[in-house]
Amino acid sequence: MAGNGGHNVGKHDAKWKAKEARQALRVGEGFDLSAVDPASTPGFGGKKEDGERALARDAQHLSDLQEMFFAGSRHGDTRTVLLVLQGMDTSGKGGVVRHVVGAIDPQGVELTAFKAPTKAELSHGFLWRVRGRLPGAGMIGVFDRSHYEDVLIGRVQQLAPADEIEHRYDLINDFERDVAGDDTTIIKVMLHISKEEQRERLRKRLDRPDKYWKFDPGDIDQRMRWDDYLEAYQAALTRTSTEHAPWFVVPADHKWYARLAVQHLLLHALSGMDLAWPPADFDIETQKQRLADS
Amino acid sequence: MAGNGGHNVGKHDAKWKAKEARQALRVGEGFDLSAVDPASTPGFGGKKEDGERALARDAQHLSDLQEMFFAGSRHGDTRTVLLVLQGMDTSGKGGVVRHVVGAIDPQGVELTAFKAPTKAELSHGFLWRVRGRLPGAGMIGVFDRSHYEDVLIGRVQQLAPADEIEHRYDLINDFERDVAGDDTTIIKVMLHISKEEQRERLRKRLDRPDKYWKFDPGDIDQRMRWDDYLEAYQAALTRTSTEHAPWFVVPADHKWYARLAVQHLLLHALSGMDLAWPPADFDIETQKQRLADS
Repeated sequence: MAGNGGHNVGKHDAKWKAKEARQALRVGEGFDLSAVDPASTPGFGGKKEDGERALARDAQHLSDLQEMFFAGSRHGDTRTVLLVLQGMDTSGKGGVVRHVVGAIDPQGVELTAFKAPTKAELSHGFLWRVRGRLPGAGMIGVFDRSHYEDVLIGRVQQLAPADEIEHRYDLINDFERDVAGDDTTIIKVMLHISKEEQRERLRKRLDRPDKYWKFDPGDIDQRMRWDDYLEAYQAALTRTSTEHAPWFVVPADHKWYARLAVQHLLLHALSGMDLAWPPADFDIETQKQRLADS
Repeated sequence: MAGNGGHNVGKHDAKWKAKEARQALRVGEGFDLSAVDPASTPGFGGKKEDGERALARDAQHLSDLQEMFFAGSRHGDTRTVLLVLQGMDTSGKGGVVRHVVGAIDPQGVELTAFKAPTKAELSHGFLWRVRGRLPGAGMIGVFDRSHYEDVLIGRVQQLAPADEIEHRYDLINDFERDVAGDDTTIIKVMLHISKEEQRERLRKRLDRPDKYWKFDPGDIDQRMRWDDYLEAYQAALTRTSTEHAPWFVVPADHKWYARLAVQHLLLHALSGMDLAWPPADFDIETQKQRLADS
């Protein structure tokens, strides 16, 4: 594998215009969530089968890059990657973990699924529990939900006073600036599904006995606040998409597209790091001799 | 998938006599490590290609069982599985993690790689850091090295007084009895390679620039104490292989066999649990109506 980190994934795949996708998904100036079509597939000209093929093809590449990234960390490279996954219920966060993150060696991944905070967690600031789960050097940290819940459900359900919620955007930006300054590449993803697609996915959970366990009546309570959530997302996305911690809104009505897009964002982050296998920090011939003698 | 948990993996595979393998690998009365051939493949009549095919075939089954196991935990099932991996350097612990554990949804796995203890860890009893990493309900916990290091390298390098090491076997047995009593199925695996096979694997690390990072001159220091390690393993295996926390010595000169064997031990543990998809704890028709209205 070349060590120059040139990002050539999808280079020969006319269907996958990765750079175009990345730019289209990124939340920038004047972003409007309501203008994003959850059924669109920015940058990808193919169909489901093509997308799945591309995903499978690049899985090994992602795993290889991660190994090189990890190897560097054993030799002093302190860099790390943090992937933050947000999205409404059924938007496919679990599927991304399983099918994109799952293709990486488990030894290189630190996954945290954040649930409703415990009493102990609530006794601290909302960033406390997140800070404790930041990934180590050479690792890809994955947050399935995150500190953003505190400005999403926190805002919609008024779990904190309005001025406190307001203040949290600034706290988040400060926090993420620190984390990024600490050699972390932060990638924040909102998986964006339509309300109709969510209905279909919830219906499946109610139709299939092997899916009942995934259903919670509370999901429908949240669903009834759909517009409030979109508004909370719009606020969070625009106020916290920064140079050092950008948001990407990934249309997610097509699961295969969402997975491909997130895989690409990880590939892009690692490819841009100029990774290389670390040189031996011992004398090779000496060690070969020792090995032969042992 | 049937919910009765009948263990039918490999049922139609004449090459893989799983039960026979399990019995052959298990450390029982009168166990003698020096009598185990690291190049053997107990219970498996096929070759590498057959073994790899069997591994790939059962990967999905393991993943499916784990999902059902996890589902149960969301509905009050408190059971958990702990896989302890030990073995000399290059014995293939990392490969088992990557190829066996890596086939399971990352959301169902809690992996801990134990390194040399930190100062903070050393200020506690040797079981302290392990206790903090026991898996939650519905999870498969994996220890890549474990508290056994404290009676392996601890014994060989005399990191603690002899009577303290002696005492640790009892402490381990007490600890594991507690953990098992706490609804944990404990599976302890020693990956057993020959000294010759280790030489080949270390040589590869010295020959290939993409493997240098895996080599540590200290590995050869440990290698020079080979017989002392075997003796420390023999003591640990015989003194701590119990009904509630049995040891399995898996011949590991053939990586494909070691992976297949460990996969089987996990499959066997989950298959024996009488897993079933949990029933809905809500009224399905009511929720369907709510969904339709929302």
